[in-house]
Amino acid sequence: MYNQIEHGANTRVMKEKFNIKEEILDFSSNVGSEKSFDIEKILKYENLKLDEYPDIDYKELREAIADYEEIASDMVIPGNGATEIIYLISRSIKCRWALINPTFSEYERALKISGNTIFEFFYSEDFFIPIENIIKNLENFDAMMICNPNNPTGNIQNLEKIVKVFKENKKLLVVDETFLDFLSENKKYSLKSLLKDNENLIIIKAFTKTHAAAGIRLGYALLNNFKLKKCLWQNKEPWTINNISMKIGINISKQKIFLKNMQENFKKDKDDFIKKLKLIPKVEVFKSDTNFCLIKTSLNSLEFRDKFFQKEKILVRSCSNFKGLSNNMIRIAIKNKEKNSKFLEALKKFSEEEL
Amino acid sequence: MYNQIEHGANTRVMKEKFNIKEEILDFSSNVGSEKSFDIEKILKYENLKLDEYPDIDYKELREAIADYEEIASDMVIPGNGATEIIYLISRSIKCRWALINPTFSEYERALKISGNTIFEFFYSEDFFIPIENIIKNLENFDAMMICNPNNPTGNIQNLEKIVKVFKENKKLLVVDETFLDFLSENKKYSLKSLLKDNENLIIIKAFTKTHAAAGIRLGYALLNNFKLKKCLWQNKEPWTINNISMKIGINISKQKIFLKNMQENFKKDKDDFIKKLKLIPKVEVFKSDTNFCLIKTSLNSLEFRDKFFQKEKILVRSCSNFKGLSNNMIRIAIKNKEKNSKFLEALKKFSEEEL
Repeated sequence: MYNQIEHGANTRVMKEKFNIKEEILDFSSNVGSEKSFDIEKILKYENLKLDEYPDIDYKELREAIADYEEIASDMVIPGNGATEIIYLISRSIKCRWALINPTFSEYERALKISGNTIFEFFYSEDFFIPIENIIKNLENFDAMMICNPNNPTGNIQNLEKIVKVFKENKKLLVVDETFLDFLSENKKYSLKSLLKDNENLIIIKAFTKTHAAAGIRLGYALLNNFKLKKCLWQNKEPWTINNISMKIGINISKQKIFLKNMQENFKKDKDDFIKKLKLIPKVEVFKSDTNFCLIKTSLNSLEFRDKFFQKEKILVRSCSNFKGLSNNMIRIAIKNKEKNSKFLEALKKFSEEEL
Repeated sequence: MYNQIEHGANTRVMKEKFNIKEEILDFSSNVGSEKSFDIEKILKYENLKLDEYPDIDYKELREAIADYEEIASDMVIPGNGATEIIYLISRSIKCRWALINPTFSEYERALKISGNTIFEFFYSEDFFIPIENIIKNLENFDAMMICNPNNPTGNIQNLEKIVKVFKENKKLLVVDETFLDFLSENKKYSLKSLLKDNENLIIIKAFTKTHAAAGIRLGYALLNNFKLKKCLWQNKEPWTINNISMKIGINISKQKIFLKNMQENFKKDKDDFIKKLKLIPKVEVFKSDTNFCLIKTSLNSLEFRDKFFQKEKILVRSCSNFKGLSNNMIRIAIKNKEKNSKFLEALKKFSEEEL
């Protein structure tokens, strides 16, 4: 019963399963570690008007996000996390969709719930986009969702070629850039600047990961196609963003210096973490361009997760439900220095004892 | 562009339309006036964990609501306002739906967006359920949504007969009891106690109106049909209720004494308001069992709304987009003593000058 979706971050269920009462460390959730907003300040100085409905058009929020993204405000559609946007697109644009596996499992769930068909591609062994195969199969789909950097593989792709091919062949490309802003080269890889001249492009973003705000549920779509925008607004459920998230979102959008600082701090912590991670025996580490990475061990991924959780009280993400990944892959988050140290120590011990 | 939905409570758009800068009084929104929770306290004493995803099964929230409603927790499905529940039901249970007009416009929008057909009934002239007509047309629909007390007519109905007929004929009945808890006889009219032995019944409720919490977006479905529950959870978008609303919802659910006090205070204010409202010339007042009522004047309803807004800085709800209502009906909220007085004074003046 309830949600039968397998995700990371479900610490409650794991604690109940293994009857663990103490605080655990969550390395299954790929949410960042640096927060850009002070909830107490926001609530103190903002008139939240909790007895009033949210503005049904989210005008102030759209304008704030537009300013943050340096884009026109009518190109922004805010949502209850990137999740609302994924589901909204899936039920508004019914056509033959394509996905490249392994990728974020909510794309498939959202598309299927709305009755769409899915043409399945697979990343190459080193996790690159199978561009030749996609070109060969252009007749078999109308639209594609891509995550860049991809979840769970963690690598960034240059999408120039795919954008060009899709534009020429009038295919819709939806790119989820949720994890992009952890990179200092985010502007180089973002497709945002192409929106002006590309009507076949939708970008999905969220404050969830980069602003460590998974609990407020705030994401958005960026697009410039009048018909598509109209279609999405016509299918959108009203008032999905509450007044508190709206104020937090407006506040976050003003923190312009935050990203740059976070990226610099994160890079240091990450480089150090990966270097040390690679020294742990019997653990293969995959290249990552964002705040999580894949590791491979001899253990089955669910067995690894459960054993590691019981012994070390650290939750990692089993990749067992990602299509097209070998069954001994684990996704781990990259957190701040202190948490990373704890994780490295635990994994080293675990490697000696269990791998 | 944006949402093309006509609702009350859209004060921003009206202020922009008529270039009004000062604070206005909102009588278009039927949200209650008494709040049951202290947001500052909740935020001070609760660990909101805004960097973590909400519990995907909302276990603690479900248990709190179950306790508040005196019902089993697996009979509760929480949502982002009653709105999420309405849309979730509409896209999960695809069949031939029926509605009784005039009623809350989101039912029709939600059902149509999901591709359902709608068989239309109409309330009688004195706003009673057309039970004979419904029985005559049982073959023409599979499920029906009813609002009780109904929005915008405001009257409560005894649904015993319709429940019996629907159960015998295996039709699904969805009853939106969002406005019921303003009545002290709420228990007498609620269908909650029937859920135990009735698999063809879903009740929709929310904290929006009775707890003056429209801005937090928190509603829920109550049902006891295993297959339907499974179907709704399978179609539900994940993480739609954020961590702050979740904590507020848990807090609200503990305020057991609140409803009784609110009902008593509200009854006094309402009786006084209706008595004085009826004394205003050229305004016909309709019977109401909840916190809003219909009035009828000689003016077209959109004209009334706009003129009244410009002159008196009070927003009322034009009923122009409710099917089956004459075009000079206005829905007004019933607020607390102070606001009601201001409204009465303004309407009296308006009646003398404009009606």
